[in-house]
Amino acid sequence: MIEYRRDAADIYARSFAIIRAEADLSRIPADLEKLAVRVAHACGMPDVIDDLVFSPGAGAAGRAALAAGAPVLCDCRMVEMGITRSRLPANNDVICTLNDPAVPELARQIDNTRSAAAVDLWRPRLAGAVVAIGNAPTALFRLLELLDAGAPRPALILGFPVGFVGAAESKAALAEDSRGVPFVVVRGRRGGSAMVGAAVNALATERE
Amino acid sequence: MIEYRRDAADIYARSFAIIRAEADLSRIPADLEKLAVRVAHACGMPDVIDDLVFSPGAGAAGRAALAAGAPVLCDCRMVEMGITRSRLPANNDVICTLNDPAVPELARQIDNTRSAAAVDLWRPRLAGAVVAIGNAPTALFRLLELLDAGAPRPALILGFPVGFVGAAESKAALAEDSRGVPFVVVRGRRGGSAMVGAAVNALATERE
Repeated sequence: MIEYRRDAADIYARSFAIIRAEADLSRIPADLEKLAVRVAHACGMPDVIDDLVFSPGAGAAGRAALAAGAPVLCDCRMVEMGITRSRLPANNDVICTLNDPAVPELARQIDNTRSAAAVDLWRPRLAGAVVAIGNAPTALFRLLELLDAGAPRPALILGFPVGFVGAAESKAALAEDSRGVPFVVVRGRRGGSAMVGAAVNALATERE
Repeated sequence: MIEYRRDAADIYARSFAIIRAEADLSRIPADLEKLAVRVAHACGMPDVIDDLVFSPGAGAAGRAALAAGAPVLCDCRMVEMGITRSRLPANNDVICTLNDPAVPELARQIDNTRSAAAVDLWRPRLAGAVVAIGNAPTALFRLLELLDAGAPRPALILGFPVGFVGAAESKAALAEDSRGVPFVVVRGRRGGSAMVGAAVNALATERE
């Protein structure tokens, strides 16, 4: 018999307590405290909290949108799977258009990635939505282009694309000018589906 | 018009080149080089390669198993979604038992998490399988318990559970005594579905 903790609620509680003991949360507003803790939990790195950049009231905006039934628009299916449906307050739709059959041809037409083309298909659901980008920098860049071209504004952009080409740049572009849309990003190369799913899960309910 | 790279193949190639320029790969055997690079790519952190621990021939064992049609056993649906089916060499089954209806009751019976109980359901497919754990430390601990109790041996264990309670410990337990099973882990708190999915994707084909 190996000795280890086997109670899920106990494991969660201890994890969050460790993060709160180790992380510097002094800079994080109350409406993003649980989001910051959950994002750190998702990646095992309390210092990721130091890299969160956000607009004032972003957490409140996301909570209100979800409570009002806003859909969650995801850039990949891993993000979709990272969102705990039972936490969502209004049986909210969780939408990923990446595998829509129109995407490959649309990507060719706009000369961009499939992840970017999938964002074009968000348009009918974009107004007031919670956007959760956890993979593709091109999805975030494309969303900014669509907003510049007059697309409806989402309620919140959670910008967590990850990687070495465009990730830091796309998040910096959003943080510098979010086109009036509330946002949370983790600056730099870090990010990912688990982190942005955790961010949505934190905004979905106060329950830890 | 925002200026950014929009060609997926170009983005991948540049990303891998950045990782190879920044990371120390001198310690990584040839059969794990692409795995190491892809794991770093998945999380945006070249230094994660410094934390990889592995048994000799683990990469070769995983490649051979996949080529022979081994199933991939995943501890959560995010891992399942992180595996690119088109890269798999033998139309391999990708299996996640976490949402099996038997799991909640089984978890109560064994007094463990649902993630651990789901591992019990792997048993009929465990012999020669590639195990991909990217979320739950209890899944990895439970697998070690089952192996100690005589369960069939998988071909490879990719141990990438993440977090603050049990993640580092479960991976250390595997690395210290892998019960004769080839393994790759990232030691410490870091890990995740994206990393372990990337590890499977690297072993699935030589194509980058």
